[in-house]
Amino acid sequence: MDLIDRYKEVRQRTEKICFYLQTEDYVVQPVVDVSPPKWHIGHVTWFFETFILKPYFMGYQEYNPDYNYVFNSYYETVGTRVIRTDRGNLSRPTVVEIYSYRKYVDEAMEGFLSGGVSNDVKELLILGFNHEEQHQELLMTDIKFILGHNPLFPAYNKNYAAPHIDEGVNDAFVSMNEGIYEIGFTGDGFCFDNELNRHKVYLNAYQISPKLVTNAEYLEFINSGGYHDFRHWHAEGWDWVKTNKVEAPLYWHLIDNEWHNYTYHGLEPLHLKGPVTHISYFEAYAYASWKGLRLPTEFEWEAAASKFNWGRRWEWTESSYLPYPGFAKAPGAIGEYNGKFMVNQKVLRGASEVTPPGHSRATYRNFFQTNLRWQFTGIRLAK
Amino acid sequence: MDLIDRYKEVRQRTEKICFYLQTEDYVVQPVVDVSPPKWHIGHVTWFFETFILKPYFMGYQEYNPDYNYVFNSYYETVGTRVIRTDRGNLSRPTVVEIYSYRKYVDEAMEGFLSGGVSNDVKELLILGFNHEEQHQELLMTDIKFILGHNPLFPAYNKNYAAPHIDEGVNDAFVSMNEGIYEIGFTGDGFCFDNELNRHKVYLNAYQISPKLVTNAEYLEFINSGGYHDFRHWHAEGWDWVKTNKVEAPLYWHLIDNEWHNYTYHGLEPLHLKGPVTHISYFEAYAYASWKGLRLPTEFEWEAAASKFNWGRRWEWTESSYLPYPGFAKAPGAIGEYNGKFMVNQKVLRGASEVTPPGHSRATYRNFFQTNLRWQFTGIRLAK
Amino acid sequence: MDLIDRYKEVRQRTEKICFYLQTEDYVVQPVVDVSPPKWHIGHVTWFFETFILKPYFMGYQEYNPDYNYVFNSYYETVGTRVIRTDRGNLSRPTVVEIYSYRKYVDEAMEGFLSGGVSNDVKELLILGFNHEEQHQELLMTDIKFILGHNPLFPAYNKNYAAPHIDEGVNDAFVSMNEGIYEIGFTGDGFCFDNELNRHKVYLNAYQISPKLVTNAEYLEFINSGGYHDFRHWHAEGWDWVKTNKVEAPLYWHLIDNEWHNYTYHGLEPLHLKGPVTHISYFEAYAYASWKGLRLPTEFEWEAAASKFNWGRRWEWTESSYLPYPGFAKAPGAIGEYNGKFMVNQKVLRGASEVTPPGHSRATYRNFFQTNLRWQFTGIRLAK
Amino acid sequence: MDLIDRYKEVRQRTEKICFYLQTEDYVVQPVVDVSPPKWHIGHVTWFFETFILKPYFMGYQEYNPDYNYVFNSYYETVGTRVIRTDRGNLSRPTVVEIYSYRKYVDEAMEGFLSGGVSNDVKELLILGFNHEEQHQELLMTDIKFILGHNPLFPAYNKNYAAPHIDEGVNDAFVSMNEGIYEIGFTGDGFCFDNELNRHKVYLNAYQISPKLVTNAEYLEFINSGGYHDFRHWHAEGWDWVKTNKVEAPLYWHLIDNEWHNYTYHGLEPLHLKGPVTHISYFEAYAYASWKGLRLPTEFEWEAAASKFNWGRRWEWTESSYLPYPGFAKAPGAIGEYNGKFMVNQKVLRGASEVTPPGHSRATYRNFFQTNLRWQFTGIRLAK
Repeated sequence: MDLIDRYKEVRQRTEKICFYLQTEDYVVQPVVDVSPPKWHIGHVTWFFETFILKPYFMGYQEYNPDYNYVFNSYYETVGTRVIRTDRGNLSRPTVVEIYSYRKYVDEAMEGFLSGGVSNDVKELLILGFNHEEQHQELLMTDIKFILGHNPLFPAYNKNYAAPHIDEGVNDAFVSMNEGIYEIGFTGDGFCFDNELNRHKVYLNAYQISPKLVTNAEYLEFINSGGYHDFRHWHAEGWDWVKTNKVEAPLYWHLIDNEWHNYTYHGLEPLHLKGPVTHISYFEAYAYASWKGLRLPTEFEWEAAASKFNWGRRWEWTESSYLPYPGFAKAPGAIGEYNGKFMVNQKVLRGASEVTPPGHSRATYRNFFQTNLRWQFTGIRLAK
Repeated sequence: MDLIDRYKEVRQRTEKICFYLQTEDYVVQPVVDVSPPKWHIGHVTWFFETFILKPYFMGYQEYNPDYNYVFNSYYETVGTRVIRTDRGNLSRPTVVEIYSYRKYVDEAMEGFLSGGVSNDVKELLILGFNHEEQHQELLMTDIKFILGHNPLFPAYNKNYAAPHIDEGVNDAFVSMNEGIYEIGFTGDGFCFDNELNRHKVYLNAYQISPKLVTNAEYLEFINSGGYHDFRHWHAEGWDWVKTNKVEAPLYWHLIDNEWHNYTYHGLEPLHLKGPVTHISYFEAYAYASWKGLRLPTEFEWEAAASKFNWGRRWEWTESSYLPYPGFAKAPGAIGEYNGKFMVNQKVLRGASEVTPPGHSRATYRNFFQTNLRWQFTGIRLAK
Repeated sequence: MDLIDRYKEVRQRTEKICFYLQTEDYVVQPVVDVSPPKWHIGHVTWFFETFILKPYFMGYQEYNPDYNYVFNSYYETVGTRVIRTDRGNLSRPTVVEIYSYRKYVDEAMEGFLSGGVSNDVKELLILGFNHEEQHQELLMTDIKFILGHNPLFPAYNKNYAAPHIDEGVNDAFVSMNEGIYEIGFTGDGFCFDNELNRHKVYLNAYQISPKLVTNAEYLEFINSGGYHDFRHWHAEGWDWVKTNKVEAPLYWHLIDNEWHNYTYHGLEPLHLKGPVTHISYFEAYAYASWKGLRLPTEFEWEAAASKFNWGRRWEWTESSYLPYPGFAKAPGAIGEYNGKFMVNQKVLRGASEVTPPGHSRATYRNFFQTNLRWQFTGIRLAK
Repeated sequence: MDLIDRYKEVRQRTEKICFYLQTEDYVVQPVVDVSPPKWHIGHVTWFFETFILKPYFMGYQEYNPDYNYVFNSYYETVGTRVIRTDRGNLSRPTVVEIYSYRKYVDEAMEGFLSGGVSNDVKELLILGFNHEEQHQELLMTDIKFILGHNPLFPAYNKNYAAPHIDEGVNDAFVSMNEGIYEIGFTGDGFCFDNELNRHKVYLNAYQISPKLVTNAEYLEFINSGGYHDFRHWHAEGWDWVKTNKVEAPLYWHLIDNEWHNYTYHGLEPLHLKGPVTHISYFEAYAYASWKGLRLPTEFEWEAAASKFNWGRRWEWTESSYLPYPGFAKAPGAIGEYNGKFMVNQKVLRGASEVTPPGHSRATYRNFFQTNLRWQFTGIRLAK
């Protein structure tokens, strides 16, 4: 596919996600980790304008210098950042104005791309595509959070085609041999800087489950008092449970003694055979501990990835998010992309039901703080 | 004017205020004291539905029982309250849906009123009118806060007819004699329960200014270091200044060494002859203290109110908001209207440029916490 | 009594209070409102050194300039203040060192006083005596808080002679006539600046109880669900109850289904006939509201004070702490004594079982924030 | 050395550390991570009583059941824990009482040990020795924090024999080959569970500095604006710098334009040739990033440890604190020792000037949160 087509495809996918929103849904920010949809659609546009059009498209006229301030997610390299907690207080620019901004930038981009681009620009462009795909995933989970925390529990889209997943039962663990494995991206395609460099790690023999933990299995943990027994939890996880009075995964609601789950269709009875999701790392760890098992490291996961199906849930690993040997930040604002988050976060591997097709790969490293639950996070066990 | 006409007039005035809003402006809640406009327009509608239609209009069909939960501002008397800080996270019901709700209730109300009403209902109705007028004032100040805290500083309405106020200079203070004065509402019209009962107070001789403190005068306080000299401030006010790094009234911005002021027209150079506004009680007190003067009590204000023009600013008084002798709460939810706020707040007297015409009177008691600034608050001095 | 004897008497009374403390008890500060005993005994000494010895005693050698920093409770007028929350982190100067400081200042004071003093100094001296008496009262309540929040519930002094108080039952209310009353201090003795000037107030007819509310009566409020019914509470009080999960007065403990009370003797069964104490204004108000009665204003209290016994509990009034007409702060640091606290606090009248004999009087105005409970606060009803 | 002698030696070392304290110094807790010395000396005693005397010494009479509540640092396994923030509010039991408790337990232990012990008990005993040694180190750093945050800056002991350390300059980095290394404890002596099991890791070729970063070198970072340039910091580190207004290592004070350092001798001019200490992981990372280098991983550190001197500073590594392959918690309360902290902390390697002699080893793993600075933490660079 040529670059213009790829550009259009990525951009349209974002707008298709937003098709089901009311104007009001674009505006709110219920918690600091969730951004208002209108910020997402402005920010991904600002990315192309700032890193491609302004430096490389001769004669390009910036749409509105104030937008740099409003849609920036970076540190001082590119102007002063809007404090992240404030995004939900901004009613202006309006959704219509942001779509005009999108249109303006899209037209400029198409003009620019029709002239052919250098390899440097092509690289930035592909980064921009992948960046927008990451925000598509965030858009989906942020929308779920916004609607799923409304007391009216509105559906996002009654006809949303959710993947129907029934996990197998008691599938035998896959055995992996002790030895040296190569980890990290290799090949010609795109990868993020945090997947480089490919390097050797030494792994002890281990076993890893070919299936994810199901809602039914997780329910056993709840029913056996898992949220009330400190022995399964990290000290910090136990404080989190107590402080937030956590009793179940996010979006679970006990109504008339039956567990329900908020989905893109609204509230539904819990699908017991499906993989548990919307749990924090603390919960994933506690569940594994209660089972007498553990989470895999990200290296164990990657080394065994070809042996199981993945891609329906982001899977918490035991690994902290750290640089690979030889990791180096790119110069300038692009260099802030990944490196500055490499502390106090856990690596997730895989992909989720809202990850754009083709976006993830076996070497892909996602990462979140240990208490966060608004992504489609799940549990794969190892021993 | 008959009740139907009065009803329509009040309701239309609310909608006229919102005419200049974009849908997004209806949604946000930048701080806990500011409610989203869409909440206001739903809440005042809920008031008529809950206190008039449901108990008194036989066969009335409630619009949506969930709205009781979303638009309630009362305690447990009428269902469980939405935590006030959450209002800004609710994208649904949408603005369009809330206007449908308004229309539904308006039609029901007009049907109901056309049948004639008892004196009891008439009293509730007039309370509903005054309640909606209070929310019209809040709508105006909440809108100002929402737009005035947006980094784009959008105008509410470029053609908004702001009252042009030039305060006089050095007008002689009015002298009032020592003696007994009668305080509180008397007459046939409407008043809030907190203006009753009319009762006697004994006042020492005092003098009160016929004019409000101007921006020019307040600027002298700033320029003489008033915000940096603890001697003028209450201990709690000084903590507030330090913690919040307060240096000027709300909406003042020093741009290229010139003071500007955010107004309904957007950012404008400060109008020096106009009365200072958007200051906290702490600032009003400190200014008076710096001048070697003081704020009047609410009784001094009321006793002298016929001697000066008032109605352009809410004026902080030295009086705490307390019940008058013989004050009694009405039974039921209506009883929560005023009494439960009678602690740790200060009385303001007068009215402001956004108070609906005819809404205030010389016995009217407004009240806010000592740190709040988003109302059109001003300073009148006494000695 | 001459000034030297009065000086010695006041100073020894402080040391007698501390006689029962362990060194460790002098050090801790469990909450911000409670000061460590060692701070109290240093601060009252610093007061005499700073306001009398340094300005008036020729050739006086300051004990240690650093102590000015450590024992100051005032704003910038006298050096930089230690942030109040930090007092409990200071292990040095030690208790022994502070007693040496006391001794040094006492000897200097006795030398100074033996030479005779001017009227100005005499006035400051008497202020110093009253200041130390106020801190004696605080010492007693702070000690109670420190020991009463220790899980071992140690007694302060098993032989402490607590006043035995049995309140009467159903005593008829005292009726007071409508009219003008004079309020405020008059006479030759000492009073604080906040008791001046004596001035007229107009009171409606009212009735006031000659007795305090008892523990037995307050228990009825608890047992009838008073802490769970929002209708009795101010909005702010209700938030306070919910946030702090308040279910009973401070120091009450339900052990094996029987109410106990922490006293200077340790934990004891609740004395039902005694006056309830250690309640906040919010609770006093809610109790009165539940009874269908109200708290008196400070003026009603003072006008009727000769008709009932008082002096065993500080009694919450409905009055906010505000300046009397003509109130003026003294110049300099002494001027910070009272005026800067005249916002968002309530007046208490009377005295408590730990008030030094002769310290209070019918015009005395004590004041605290509406949520505080560590003083011996009680309830007298009015209607 | 036999067990009784070893027991006595460890116990006496604790008391020797406390010899220089005033009673008041035992009591305070300025921040949550610092425990009052009296808690430490009670807690290590409680450890021997709870895990050895009570289960294994027939007829042992518990000293005081309440002490279990006061001196416990464990979760619900051994009774209800005192909330850690409360330790500084407890004036009782007094220091004298706690020393009596120590004496009682010591006598019982000596009686018990004179009878000979099983291997199981011997293992617990040696854990108890190492546990007390860890608390000796904490005692020293907690004492430094308590005295070093007192505005009088008292010395701990003017004759304290601080190790005089001059780091070399520009020492060539040590080169290490790519390959498989064995990591973790091996041998017969004691180690903590987190040092097991010994296992293979694959390391890329790397270089590691034989010296620590000095105060002089760190000063260059400060003087070049290192604390004001976001590019060197993790996003979370940058927030920490801004929120806490960090400008230099803990205990550094700029007085009359010269840097001073609080030490056990009191305030002293900064020793430029000594290794920088009392820095957070965030600062260590930012310094390395500013130098264009990085911190070693804990595996790189351990593999190279024989090539350089270590033991004067705890050295931050890039490694997160995670379980080694095959890590398993011991059953019961002892199992809470290490595992529950294995999240969101960084590994430190080495030892510090206050680590008891013989306590550490090359496989020893210490760990702290990334923002903590009260330990003697330093920087070793790698590339």
